Amino acid sequence: MKLHNYFRSSASFRVRIALQLKGLPYEYLPVHLVKGEHRQDRFAGIAPSRLVPVLETDGGELLSQSLAIMEYLDETHPEPALLPREAGERAHVRALALLVACEIHPLNNLRVLKYLANELKLDEETRNGWYRHWVRVGLEAYERELARLPASTYSCGDTPTIADCCLVPQIFNGRRVNTDYSGLDRTMRVFDACMELPAFQKAQPSAQPDSEP
Amino acid sequence: MKLHNYFRSSASFRVRIALQLKGLPYEYLPVHLVKGEHRQDRFAGIAPSRLVPVLETDGGELLSQSLAIMEYLDETHPEPALLPREAGERAHVRALALLVACEIHPLNNLRVLKYLANELKLDEETRNGWYRHWVRVGLEAYERELARLPASTYSCGDTPTIADCCLVPQIFNGRRVNTDYSGLDRTMRVFDACMELPAFQKAQPSAQPDSEP
Repeated sequence: MKLHNYFRSSASFRVRIALQLKGLPYEYLPVHLVKGEHRQDRFAGIAPSRLVPVLETDGGELLSQSLAIMEYLDETHPEPALLPREAGERAHVRALALLVACEIHPLNNLRVLKYLANELKLDEETRNGWYRHWVRVGLEAYERELARLPASTYSCGDTPTIADCCLVPQIFNGRRVNTDYSGLDRTMRVFDACMELPAFQKAQPSAQPDSEP
Repeated sequence: MKLHNYFRSSASFRVRIALQLKGLPYEYLPVHLVKGEHRQDRFAGIAPSRLVPVLETDGGELLSQSLAIMEYLDETHPEPALLPREAGERAHVRALALLVACEIHPLNNLRVLKYLANELKLDEETRNGWYRHWVRVGLEAYERELARLPASTYSCGDTPTIADCCLVPQIFNGRRVNTDYSGLDRTMRVFDACMELPAFQKAQPSAQPDSEP
């Protein structure tokens, strides 16, 4: 398999974690978002939506959207499972993953930050305030959602799930603008537990071939 | 089952379509977002994340996030299926659903529009421009993604899927700010095909008990 991705992209990071957790080897194909490589013609043939990550399967299929890719990996390589078996528990895991993927991350990705700067002419401090606001509000909701689940090492249960694959990159992401994580005790304990695992360490931005300081 | 939801919420609309497509009866419990009922204590016990929709199962489980709810419904009531059987096809359907749910809708929901107005002090025309921009850009990507799939009545294949459950509410949503849908020929043909089905008609905002003009 090949992964078209970018070291700092949170959505790419999610899929790298999933691939590492499942022990699946893949070819790393960097797409430099800041240089706009995702908008070039070469990439348009790979991703009509011009977004990373894209997983190119051994059969040549091109799969986009990180959550869809993780579900695909879980269906085609079931062990170790990234989702529980029972439908209600699966729904809770997916809801946590979506809380990050739909309520936090979309507001702070590169194209949105560019719109804030270029179209709305907002200064850097205002943009960073926007960024921190949505990360903080979203993770407070994550913390409240965790509070009603049974105690566990990871977000849901004692093995990592797609919820953790989404949470960890979001924590990294929010640190770039010094988001306040105080009081998010259970969420941060989950983050720390994840970061003790080699899969999460190997998937982090600083460990990627296209990493920059 | 009970659905805590709001007639105009796109995410609620998605779940209503899924319930209708599967022929599942449910109790409609309105949560008035504009009046802030989702932030009141009564609702916090139902949804720690303070978001609609929430599906309350017959077993009393409270499930949040529209895509997680639709997957749950598809797993617990498999027929008619809202996802194909083959893993690659499932990934394509999910990617289209996520293209709406992660790349378009989060930028235009009520709390974001409020932040634009109250924190960033942007005027209505600027806010509407933002809204239209993300709907248009997102649906252009949707159109390009459809272009590489085989011809079909709905987004993927000849029966509706969760992709259609996400697309249709987004089209309704963008109409509120007069988004330009010209040139999105295949996407709009899919929309029209969906709206011929009673399930989509019954789920639309104007057909809900809490509907307002």
